[in-house]
Amino acid sequence: MTPFTLHPQLLTDCHLLGRLPHSHLLLHRNAAVPWFILVPETALTNLLDLRASQREGVLADAKRVSDYLTKTLGCPKINVAWLGNLVPQLHVHVIGRRPSDPCWPRPVWGHLELFQPYPPEQVTAIRAELLPP
Amino acid sequence: MTPFTLHPQLLTDCHLLGRLPHSHLLLHRNAAVPWFILVPETALTNLLDLRASQREGVLADAKRVSDYLTKTLGCPKINVAWLGNLVPQLHVHVIGRRPSDPCWPRPVWGHLELFQPYPPEQVTAIRAELLPP
Repeated sequence: MTPFTLHPQLLTDCHLLGRLPHSHLLLHRNAAVPWFILVPETALTNLLDLRASQREGVLADAKRVSDYLTKTLGCPKINVAWLGNLVPQLHVHVIGRRPSDPCWPRPVWGHLELFQPYPPEQVTAIRAELLPP
Repeated sequence: MTPFTLHPQLLTDCHLLGRLPHSHLLLHRNAAVPWFILVPETALTNLLDLRASQREGVLADAKRVSDYLTKTLGCPKINVAWLGNLVPQLHVHVIGRRPSDPCWPRPVWGHLELFQPYPPEQVTAIRAELLPP
């Protein structure tokens, strides 16, 4: 069986933070909005098609990220989606949104013109908060 | 307790098809892509925050719609999302996508310029296929 590898486009677009119990956790490199991506190890491309236990696991991981966005970062709105039109590997977007962010109220895809990189220490801090050792 | 009512914007944008076991089923009026919206009866705005049994019920409804898009309509890709930046009432988009559709590979929100109405008999046919009596 071929070992699981993350799609190279996701690794180009994101910082790889590490493992949650049911998915790989990535942080989009654009700090203009707090934007996480979860990648479960599956060859299926639609989360709805996963067996219930794996799907529920991924959603529990997404809930952990969503709670971080809401409770720690104070985001009033969470956008969740799996699309896969460009990158076929199943990946779940969990994005914190605020009326003050640069593309509110539009979705981020194709509407986020501002690019703002994370300082490396902020990536380290986010990793520590979401993935305790 | 106030009876549940669908957000008026959803009723403006969509045909109301009826009830699935765990949600109200709507069909977006734009036939340019097959685009369904599921609305569970809850005051919460993030599907991840629902209790597990209700969340799983809504996802089972979404799976029914997703299977219809895949198996009956032959859509090779399914986009699933809950955003709520414009309409706060929780609603889950389940959208069938094809490389030949008018905004592929971009997401539909804010990118679908073509508007194509459904003939009434097609709405009736879709309702009959998804909501057997």
